[in-house]
Amino acid sequence: MTQHRNKRNTQVTVVGLGLMGRALAGAFVRGGLDVTVWNRTASRADDLVAGGARRAGSVREAVEAAGPDGLVVVCLTDYDAVREVLDPLGGLLDGRVLVNLTSGTSTVARETAARVAEAGGVCLDGAVMATPDGIGTADATVLLSGDFGAWTRHEKTLRLLGGRTDHIGDDHGLAALYEMGVLGLMWGILNGFLHGAALLGAAGVRAEAFAPVAKQGVATVAGWLDDYARRADAGDHGSPEATVETHLATMNHLVHESEALGVDTELPRLVRELAERAVAAGHGGDEYSVMIDVFRKRVGTPS
Amino acid sequence: MTQHRNKRNTQVTVVGLGLMGRALAGAFVRGGLDVTVWNRTASRADDLVAGGARRAGSVREAVEAAGPDGLVVVCLTDYDAVREVLDPLGGLLDGRVLVNLTSGTSTVARETAARVAEAGGVCLDGAVMATPDGIGTADATVLLSGDFGAWTRHEKTLRLLGGRTDHIGDDHGLAALYEMGVLGLMWGILNGFLHGAALLGAAGVRAEAFAPVAKQGVATVAGWLDDYARRADAGDHGSPEATVETHLATMNHLVHESEALGVDTELPRLVRELAERAVAAGHGGDEYSVMIDVFRKRVGTPS
Ligand SMILES: NC(=O)c1ccc[n+]([C@@H]2O[C@H](COP(=O)([O-])OP(=O)(O)OC[C@H]3O[C@@H](n4cnc5c(N)ncnc54)[C@H](OP(=O)(O)O)[C@@H]3O)[C@@H](O)[C@H]2O)c1
Ligand SMILES: NC(=O)c1ccc[n+]([C@@H]2O[C@H](COP(=O)([O-])OP(=O)(O)OC[C@H]3O[C@@H](n4cnc5c(N)ncnc54)[C@H](OP(=O)(O)O)[C@@H]3O)[C@@H](O)[C@H]2O)c1
Repeated sequence: MTQHRNKRNTQVTVVGLGLMGRALAGAFVRGGLDVTVWNRTASRADDLVAGGARRAGSVREAVEAAGPDGLVVVCLTDYDAVREVLDPLGGLLDGRVLVNLTSGTSTVARETAARVAEAGGVCLDGAVMATPDGIGTADATVLLSGDFGAWTRHEKTLRLLGGRTDHIGDDHGLAALYEMGVLGLMWGILNGFLHGAALLGAAGVRAEAFAPVAKQGVATVAGWLDDYARRADAGDHGSPEATVETHLATMNHLVHESEALGVDTELPRLVRELAERAVAAGHGGDEYSVMIDVFRKRVGTPS
Repeated sequence: MTQHRNKRNTQVTVVGLGLMGRALAGAFVRGGLDVTVWNRTASRADDLVAGGARRAGSVREAVEAAGPDGLVVVCLTDYDAVREVLDPLGGLLDGRVLVNLTSGTSTVARETAARVAEAGGVCLDGAVMATPDGIGTADATVLLSGDFGAWTRHEKTLRLLGGRTDHIGDDHGLAALYEMGVLGLMWGILNGFLHGAALLGAAGVRAEAFAPVAKQGVATVAGWLDDYARRADAGDHGSPEATVETHLATMNHLVHESEALGVDTELPRLVRELAERAVAAGHGGDEYSVMIDVFRKRVGTPS
């Protein structure tokens, strides 16, 4: 039976079984792969082992279990932890593909890829754009960048993590960069929703009543992003649908409403301050997409 | 012909023909209504008049043209402009329904409704959650609050503005409150997208390449809002999918990435600072939804 499994199945090792690592390992187990797991706190592997995964006694043992054609997936708190866990391995990686799904900056992602190469491995750096309970579903996005050959070899296995798993380029820093962009958007949505829910809550409206309206609003605004992208790439912010000035006027309302209802004003104040910079630089009549030049520090940098 | 029109058609007057007012009037004209328009700068009515609308020479004339059963829709820069335009009318409103689609705070919306009542009118206050080019489409949301009888009487006409036009309650301030909530979300998305596009742009990636990934990310995060709402209403932020601490770690990455690429750090720094407050107050292990208590100033208010 064991021999049968070894012959037929891809061998995957998952290092790091936090909230995300457990979800990743679980998706591989459900996909019928031969899964070995390791975590610093060993007990976090219990459920996975009960479900058919093998527990390794050390990182070394875990990496070896992947075999020379296997895959080693790493998902830890941060790159410092990755370094601490992988550095003692020396040349052990020996041609193995290491997929690093730990979050970090593009710079550190590139450094880690170089270190993996030094240890004899081939690196793919990735960004998971889903919560643990989304892993393995059709909508989950996992972006990978780095060695293209490693991607084509393991594409089928990696697609078990989510229907929108894709390779976006050879530069190991790319996935991290896209992740940073999407994370900023994510906090924009989560903070915007929670701030709005706090406002409405102060007036006696439940967050559950706000949610459907908020989701419709999100869908509407998402529909503008292609046009915003086109404008950003072309540097063309003319023929506006809504000017920075009109936005600024309503930003004032949001600050006042928040103040009146005893809700945080710091976030709306900063949003307003950034828009004021665009207006002060003469962009009041432009489409709001011109704000990219504020973020690029091309206009209105405070002195 | 004119008599025929007067007999069959609902009479609508639109006061204010800026970017949004022109779109509103255009939707009524396309809906086959008898539309009268007025704008301070008269020339802005030219296209609408060419399309079949009637130009009024004064606000008074415009309001009278709506007839006692008609609808007067007002969409100006802000409530100060609304006051300036409507106050001279005295009791002229005489039972007419005034729909105010100008943006403002809930307080000013309620004051304006009271002033409309004094002038003999019936007020609906509304929030347009669409850009001008979305007006009249199935997805456009227009929220109205105030007199329920006025809503039922004019529901069919108002639905011409968008497929998701709805009445959300009797309190005239409600539409403004929902608008404030959705606007905050909107800036969260637009700024998040533009900030991310600035980051990726600094690394040579076009905004048009980022847009599809960003839209997928937005859809993913929108899928969390119902759970966030449930958590916010219940005050239950346990059993996390992603802890505030994990968010905080990646916020650090976004600050560093922005710094390294010469992109604005103010927005990510404030986002981080807010999360740090939740951690300092002992919520590091909770789901990020606990941030609503930071916005409510219930935890971690800076001294
Ligand atoms: N959760 C999400 O929704 C989500 C979404 C996208 C991306 N991510 C990213 O995925 C990564 C992991 O997140 P998570 O939610 O799984 O975090 P988590 O639940 O806090 O898990 C962290 C993991 O890292 C391990 N670890 C930390 N320092 C270590 C060290 N020095 N040596 C060995 N192991 C160490 C922990 O081991 P112990 O169990 O022994 O503490 C644990 O397995 C992060 O980079 C995060 O940004 C998470
Ligand atoms: N554009 C959008 O995407 C959008 C979306 C949702 C909500 N809104 C809201 O809709 C309202 C109008 O926005 P908009 O984009 O149409 O703005 P806009 O293009 O700047 O138009 C402003 C209008 O107000 C008039 N006005 C301003 N002050 C006046 C005064 N004292 N007396 C008479 N008329 C005055 C202007 O007349 P003149 O032509 O004579 O200057 C113009 O018709 C705002 O409250 C905005 O927040 C807009």
